[in-house]
Amino acid sequence: MSKETTKTALLEAGRRVFLERGYNHAGLELILQAAGVPKGSFYHYFDSKEDFGLQVLNRFAEGHNAVLDRYLREPGFSPLQRLRRLTEAMCERLESLQCRNGCMVGNLSLEMAEHSEAFRSRLDAICGAWVGRYADCLKEAQEAGEIPAGLDARDLAEFWLNSWQGAVLRAKTVRSTAPLRTFLKVMFESVLKKSDLGDV
Amino acid sequence: MSKETTKTALLEAGRRVFLERGYNHAGLELILQAAGVPKGSFYHYFDSKEDFGLQVLNRFAEGHNAVLDRYLREPGFSPLQRLRRLTEAMCERLESLQCRNGCMVGNLSLEMAEHSEAFRSRLDAICGAWVGRYADCLKEAQEAGEIPAGLDARDLAEFWLNSWQGAVLRAKTVRSTAPLRTFLKVMFESVLKKSDLGDV
Repeated sequence: MSKETTKTALLEAGRRVFLERGYNHAGLELILQAAGVPKGSFYHYFDSKEDFGLQVLNRFAEGHNAVLDRYLREPGFSPLQRLRRLTEAMCERLESLQCRNGCMVGNLSLEMAEHSEAFRSRLDAICGAWVGRYADCLKEAQEAGEIPAGLDARDLAEFWLNSWQGAVLRAKTVRSTAPLRTFLKVMFESVLKKSDLGDV
Repeated sequence: MSKETTKTALLEAGRRVFLERGYNHAGLELILQAAGVPKGSFYHYFDSKEDFGLQVLNRFAEGHNAVLDRYLREPGFSPLQRLRRLTEAMCERLESLQCRNGCMVGNLSLEMAEHSEAFRSRLDAICGAWVGRYADCLKEAQEAGEIPAGLDARDLAEFWLNSWQGAVLRAKTVRSTAPLRTFLKVMFESVLKKSDLGDV
């Protein structure tokens, strides 16, 4: 394997193992084994397990940013349609994984935010960047008259993301997408719904 | 210490240690030390660490059920006022703890739901009982004409609890109650808000 391939294989194995077991239970041996990379080469690529963990997290966040940008800027759909298509796609993705692994950012927030300032600040920045993307789309939807104009788009985006994380967490416990479907239903039929009689 | 006192001291120490470190990182020695109970007596009270963990969880859930019942059935307030007073009180409680520990049920859902069927089914039952209490109060609020009648009270209660858990999780990462305040704002100013022009 080339240097770049080996590094990518390690990061990809880290993503899978972190999602299945969390960070603390992801032994380096297991990750090396999953990546098919010989022992001893790990520290050639990463300073420490924390450095590795942060790079796995960054790679996950970049991948998800690309998904968000693809859906939330998709041509030919209104802002509200784009938001709905994104959320449906995320539901389907979690369904295909039997809702088992949840979201790496939610999982690591619970596991690491209290114990590592490096993880905490990185997780905070990642969520902030996601909130920004949702807020832009929600603002567009307000300007297009698709959703009520009375709510602050940034507050709504924060609320959206946190509520989604909560629904993903619950989906892990009930092992079904029912909490995600309830999220979709209440969000689109209540929070984002314009009254037929006009709106504030 | 009497038998009952020793058992209670262990369960209380377990609660504190689980909230600070999670279940897997809560060594029995640490719990015994925190409880001031001599080594060797643990298995006199509990069959296994899992049995202990489930009893800690049950005790937490019973305590929280009592809080919910006190607020959600408080005389002299309307259903919506009771819900608001409960949520404000929970915000203040988390604020007093610097939002560090989060909620035991949310934490254990993330840590254990995937790895222990005993925890998963217990967590599911606890959340179900909480949803029931919120749904009863929301239904009352609908009947009193305080909130829109168009939403299913049970769906709304599920959404409420999951969104709250997501906000608590985010509060851990940003180390402030801002996500809880955003939750309150969007919930009361949007989801539960009746349009001035009538409602569905």
